[in-house]
Amino acid sequence: MLFFPSLNKLFVIMKLDQILDMLGNDTRREILQLLSEGPCYVSQVSQELNVGQKAIIEHLKLMHHAGILETRDKKIEKGRPRKYYGISQEVILEVKIGHRLFDISDISPVFDNELLKTFPKLEHITAKLEMLSHLTEKDRMVELESIYKQLEDERDDLDTAKRIVEYFLGQVNREIQSQKLEKELSDIGF
Amino acid sequence: MLFFPSLNKLFVIMKLDQILDMLGNDTRREILQLLSEGPCYVSQVSQELNVGQKAIIEHLKLMHHAGILETRDKKIEKGRPRKYYGISQEVILEVKIGHRLFDISDISPVFDNELLKTFPKLEHITAKLEMLSHLTEKDRMVELESIYKQLEDERDDLDTAKRIVEYFLGQVNREIQSQKLEKELSDIGF
Repeated sequence: MLFFPSLNKLFVIMKLDQILDMLGNDTRREILQLLSEGPCYVSQVSQELNVGQKAIIEHLKLMHHAGILETRDKKIEKGRPRKYYGISQEVILEVKIGHRLFDISDISPVFDNELLKTFPKLEHITAKLEMLSHLTEKDRMVELESIYKQLEDERDDLDTAKRIVEYFLGQVNREIQSQKLEKELSDIGF
Repeated sequence: MLFFPSLNKLFVIMKLDQILDMLGNDTRREILQLLSEGPCYVSQVSQELNVGQKAIIEHLKLMHHAGILETRDKKIEKGRPRKYYGISQEVILEVKIGHRLFDISDISPVFDNELLKTFPKLEHITAKLEMLSHLTEKDRMVELESIYKQLEDERDDLDTAKRIVEYFLGQVNREIQSQKLEKELSDIGF
């Protein structure tokens, strides 16, 4: 059994601009959603989404070229091997648009033991993962589900904290700009 | 002087799918980046980006229709008033693509006093904001810049924590799936 298999390190370098180009299409978003559940071959995708094969092939090729999708050939009993398309790697990207704010960034999952130490709550949750091997199979499953739930809660908390930080960053930025403007005006005698 | 002006509450409801459609184009991303620095009129945008006015007008109309941009007429000395385009509101969106993971969500800035209490470090930073009015103008500016820096650091920390949480969520999810598969296989006698 693979216990926490290491992620594929041979990440394709994906350009965020290219990913946004790919995401700017309804059918391609639907394809990505479908493939996130598992690899499919062309006619499967075409049937699931009720979109012609020719269009599906075009979209799949584009996304493969952009590095979001990977392909794998699978032998079948008769005929040529089937080409399966799947998500190549996890990617999380964040787009910020606002006043004096424009940023597209890659916030894909990472692991860093050093950084983990600065988040005691998180370290506590993940420490439980190391205890798993001492458990019976049934208890391990219960514990895994419980850890998953805790991680989800932690993610929600972090999202909330982030949204609040962004709110204050916006407010403080606006205040700084307005103070600067006031100073400029008073400097020229208004 | 407006001190922390309240945000415009009349938010246009933006559909995330529509925003992604808008973001899926290089010129539109460039327009958004330009307008994040301040409102512009058509020929300004056209000159700055070195793209024909006809194409610019088309892109601006699309983004206005999608609710990302707002317009404002500004009188000029001679001739018709000039139509300025600007970012309508701050929006932060997050796209996650991976194995058993597909999510597009709006994580735009929010403020919630109740939630703030659960983040002591954040509450500490924001408490300083309330002390600002006691300061001289010069000290206030220094303090604002310092708070801004702290908030940025906090945002970086939260981003890091989130990426680590996402990493573990992926790992735990894979482990759960592999345990389920093992159980299924053993149930049918493998």
